[in-house]
Amino acid sequence: MYEPRYASRAEGMRASEIRELLKLLEQPGIISFAGGIPDPELFPKEAINAAYHGILANEALAAQALQYSVSEGYRPLREWIASHMASRGVPASADNILITSGSQQALEFLGKLFITPGDTALVAAPTYLGALQAFSAYEPRYDTLGPESANRTPASYAEAAATTGGSVKFAYVVPDFANPTGRTMSSKARKGLIALAEELDCVIIEDAAYVDLRFGGETVPAVQALDVARHGGDLNTSRVIYCGTFSKTLTPGLRIGWVCAAKPIVRRLTLIKQACDLNSSLINQMVVERLAAATFGSQVEQASRHYRNRRDAMLAALKHHMPAGVTWTTPEGGLFIWVELPEQCDGQDLLRRAISEAQVAFVPGGAFFTDGTGRNTMRLSYSLPNEAQIEDGIARLGKLIATAA
Amino acid sequence: MYEPRYASRAEGMRASEIRELLKLLEQPGIISFAGGIPDPELFPKEAINAAYHGILANEALAAQALQYSVSEGYRPLREWIASHMASRGVPASADNILITSGSQQALEFLGKLFITPGDTALVAAPTYLGALQAFSAYEPRYDTLGPESANRTPASYAEAAATTGGSVKFAYVVPDFANPTGRTMSSKARKGLIALAEELDCVIIEDAAYVDLRFGGETVPAVQALDVARHGGDLNTSRVIYCGTFSKTLTPGLRIGWVCAAKPIVRRLTLIKQACDLNSSLINQMVVERLAAATFGSQVEQASRHYRNRRDAMLAALKHHMPAGVTWTTPEGGLFIWVELPEQCDGQDLLRRAISEAQVAFVPGGAFFTDGTGRNTMRLSYSLPNEAQIEDGIARLGKLIATAA
Repeated sequence: MYEPRYASRAEGMRASEIRELLKLLEQPGIISFAGGIPDPELFPKEAINAAYHGILANEALAAQALQYSVSEGYRPLREWIASHMASRGVPASADNILITSGSQQALEFLGKLFITPGDTALVAAPTYLGALQAFSAYEPRYDTLGPESANRTPASYAEAAATTGGSVKFAYVVPDFANPTGRTMSSKARKGLIALAEELDCVIIEDAAYVDLRFGGETVPAVQALDVARHGGDLNTSRVIYCGTFSKTLTPGLRIGWVCAAKPIVRRLTLIKQACDLNSSLINQMVVERLAAATFGSQVEQASRHYRNRRDAMLAALKHHMPAGVTWTTPEGGLFIWVELPEQCDGQDLLRRAISEAQVAFVPGGAFFTDGTGRNTMRLSYSLPNEAQIEDGIARLGKLIATAA
Repeated sequence: MYEPRYASRAEGMRASEIRELLKLLEQPGIISFAGGIPDPELFPKEAINAAYHGILANEALAAQALQYSVSEGYRPLREWIASHMASRGVPASADNILITSGSQQALEFLGKLFITPGDTALVAAPTYLGALQAFSAYEPRYDTLGPESANRTPASYAEAAATTGGSVKFAYVVPDFANPTGRTMSSKARKGLIALAEELDCVIIEDAAYVDLRFGGETVPAVQALDVARHGGDLNTSRVIYCGTFSKTLTPGLRIGWVCAAKPIVRRLTLIKQACDLNSSLINQMVVERLAAATFGSQVEQASRHYRNRRDAMLAALKHHMPAGVTWTTPEGGLFIWVELPEQCDGQDLLRRAISEAQVAFVPGGAFFTDGTGRNTMRLSYSLPNEAQIEDGIARLGKLIATAA
């Protein structure tokens, strides 16, 4: 085997446990609470089929859809997204929107745009593993965003950042139904985050991957909406960069997401998009625009109902089957419940036993921490198994934990 | 407007002149020899429509096609590509193949995998501008690969590389019908390149974007095939990384390309793919697999005939209309002819006048050099205008050059 000499950053690149676990889903008989991918039952297959056909059966549209196109993305889709952002309290125009290949690509672009090795990225603990993978290629130092009652001063972040020769470049948050915890930041916590970012003069990356899937509680304003309101309604003076996606509402298979931000930032990201892959598939963008315009509201409604039932089933099963000493979150939306196991329980060990002895899979929580903590946690997704499987799988898992604890 | 503090690498990012020029194509009345994009007349629209429909009308296939999927790509497509590579003299298996979003994404990944700031990338002068954009984000030093009769020693490259604290990490070439020159490297030059890379212990990136579009002369073995042959037929010990694409043969609109390389390199690139955008659109990969299996040969044949006629028309028009002192290449395939103008002619100035006075567009050649030379050159693409427009446009351009020179 030939191993060439790689860049120094290549040392830090490693496979995602979650992605490796995705392969387990293919094993028959496993009840999987891993993954965190949407239920394919919800994909609007007929509408997607009709949209492709409508474009490809028209000679002129087909010639356009199958050609190279502009890096910033298909203008009608950017306009739809701008009006969607307006409904979130963010007065955006198409020039504030860049189309990306899923919001994962947006995170990768933001690492590239902001991080010089030694700079600091503020992230929650635990946080989305894919974000850590995207940022880590640019060799940041990580520091931890505190919980709502943070007791660290802005100066303490700045001083710690200076020790590696850089500064705090951004704070990354998943404010609604976070991956992996399912928790939602309060309005007060969002405002506190904005105040912190102002003190540190850094941007905020708002990863809104799950925000549309709310099925309980009250809507909390987007961090970007709160920041724009502080600036007299001018998005172009906001320090918040919003990453959205159609993956959880329509389908992840077309790989279409977006960034909404001040124009100077969008222009920089457009140059990065050009250098990285020229443009996202135009035909896919055109299909998503047709779908969004025709079915977004009803898709969201259907998906929310669907996942609410499954969340309810999982919460009931956890209550029924988990031994004392196990606690969990109660998400108001999204796809995840976060479980804390008794101190002496190790999520990795439990997973091995869960697969072989109970035919149940989940993601051990340690993977979502940058500091090696969280060994006694796990992430459960209720998106794929049906209610009966959820009851069955949680019962098996509860029994296993009772014997392990 | 809010301008955050960017990474140091952001300073070097700039818009591609070519991509900006693409916008000119929309102006009615302009005969464009810019771009270098395939003729949409050739896109197999009906076959693509049938492929999407065949997948989406099947409940199980649709559920798969619209879901997240593995980062390395759709296995049947990787298998088709492996057998395609075998027909090129490269004995690949599916594990040697990574699917990318066009070959542009492969170039970006390779910059990320190999370049630590200060490392050296060897490139031809002129070379593909998109490659320079992809690599430049990783802040390499560039050095120039000589023409066939290179008179530089390997040691001179290594010594120059050491001056910026790094080493030569790769040599990047477009060996067949290069963008922008249309030139093809001889077998001898390819073997010389391999010898140079061995001396420098660096990899070779073979950008094969146009190789399928040969319509004259003799096929030259792929650099990767020559290197594999030196290693007893074992691809996994080869230092050549081959980047292929369906953009020039089937359609660029689905954004599907590939890397073929030794397994350790493919595994590294798969991690990068995962962090960058998880996976390329699976439905698009499935469509391309169906198209490739059913129509690749006939598409290539049709496209080669089509572009041969246009190349012939452009060569005839150049001969007829260009004033003395203008020379050009005679490509055996691909989409480009490279023109050298009289010394005092400036391509940028000529373009401005060509657009406003003659309604003709092309790409000034200076953009393709890393060292500021090549001002008196231009790249002409014959892919989009028909034969009559080629004759007309070259006549207008010849007249303009005659008055400018």
